[in-house]
Amino acid sequence: MWQIYAPEGAYGTADRKAFSEVITDVYADLCGLPRFYVVVVFEERPAGTIWVGGEPADNFVRVVIDHIARQVDTPALRDLTMEMFEATMEPFVKDRGFEWEIHIDETPIEFWRTQGFVPPPAESEHEKRWAADNAASEWQGQDAHVWSDQFA
Amino acid sequence: MWQIYAPEGAYGTADRKAFSEVITDVYADLCGLPRFYVVVVFEERPAGTIWVGGEPADNFVRVVIDHIARQVDTPALRDLTMEMFEATMEPFVKDRGFEWEIHIDETPIEFWRTQGFVPPPAESEHEKRWAADNAASEWQGQDAHVWSDQFA
Amino acid sequence: MWQIYAPEGAYGTADRKAFSEVITDVYADLCGLPRFYVVVVFEERPAGTIWVGGEPADNFVRVVIDHIARQVDTPALRDLTMEMFEATMEPFVKDRGFEWEIHIDETPIEFWRTQGFVPPPAESEHEKRWAADNAASEWQGQDAHVWSDQFA
Repeated sequence: MWQIYAPEGAYGTADRKAFSEVITDVYADLCGLPRFYVVVVFEERPAGTIWVGGEPADNFVRVVIDHIARQVDTPALRDLTMEMFEATMEPFVKDRGFEWEIHIDETPIEFWRTQGFVPPPAESEHEKRWAADNAASEWQGQDAHVWSDQFA
Repeated sequence: MWQIYAPEGAYGTADRKAFSEVITDVYADLCGLPRFYVVVVFEERPAGTIWVGGEPADNFVRVVIDHIARQVDTPALRDLTMEMFEATMEPFVKDRGFEWEIHIDETPIEFWRTQGFVPPPAESEHEKRWAADNAASEWQGQDAHVWSDQFA
Repeated sequence: MWQIYAPEGAYGTADRKAFSEVITDVYADLCGLPRFYVVVVFEERPAGTIWVGGEPADNFVRVVIDHIARQVDTPALRDLTMEMFEATMEPFVKDRGFEWEIHIDETPIEFWRTQGFVPPPAESEHEKRWAADNAASEWQGQDAHVWSDQFA
């Protein structure tokens, strides 16, 4: 779940498509996640909305992310994650003359459902099917109690 | 704290009242929380704002929640929590033909104040009074240092 | 990262400047953080957007914060943090007759970059330089792998 706070008019429809596609590619190509797991919300804000250090910041892109499907536990892998996203964002922020900042939080996987389904375990056959279908569907073990027993 | 990202016009005033009431009921009736602890922000977004897997998602409701007053520690109880919220949301998302996704984060209870007060401990007499009054008020132990001593 | 959800028109430009400045002062004067680390987003919402306990809350200011640069680990220091922010907010919320509520989350420091840089370690000479410059710049150790080695 990405929220991209940006000045009004920063990104037109073609930009949004391109930006959300390259973000999605990172998760799909490198992590094998279903593409529909990647939600990007473009949060345009008029001048005078965002303040940095007590000054108006009307040329600033602030990216706020919640990761749910995968946890990244080591500092080295977290750095690598950030490197990838910096490279991904570069054409849309730095190359356009925006200031920018990004941070990620991780939230509990058991506290997540999509289309009413408990998402299948990471790298399971079911997740691969969801990725191939680019859609959620019933799976053996989708029953919450069965799934939670894996962790009990 | 619920934020419900939805297409423009998805929920009129009567819908918002009904939706926020049934959400509040879950916390009040099942957990005994004061009703005013439950904040719901309807975040309407115009078409072209939300992208899922690099495609525009203009029929999609994305629910983002921060839980503060109670922590749910076991996978089984987390599943139960999600079951309850799925049932709660169903008439407002699935039954209206929206796609939907939900996730919850938990944030530190000591990092929370309402109306300037430290909220009373879970299931304390003071919390029950706040629930009965549906309002925050002074309570013995509201002093932060007294309260924090409980955890020291 | 502060997000201040408030009724439409609650804070004009002068208010926003003053409010974001006093927030910034807390982090800069008490923690020594670079002023530009402090991002404040004023999230004005029209009547009927925010619901509290199933009722419209059109006189309500809801503050949602992510802390990244510093973690506060003890309940006593967390209480102190909240006391400071309550005092900081008082002229902008309580004294203007708003209802209000605030909570803070903490997010992983390795999952944060500003202007493409890994921020320097807390209280390091590099951080002091960033604070004095009120700007990010290259620093010895900015390489992610060097930095992460500190934590390995």
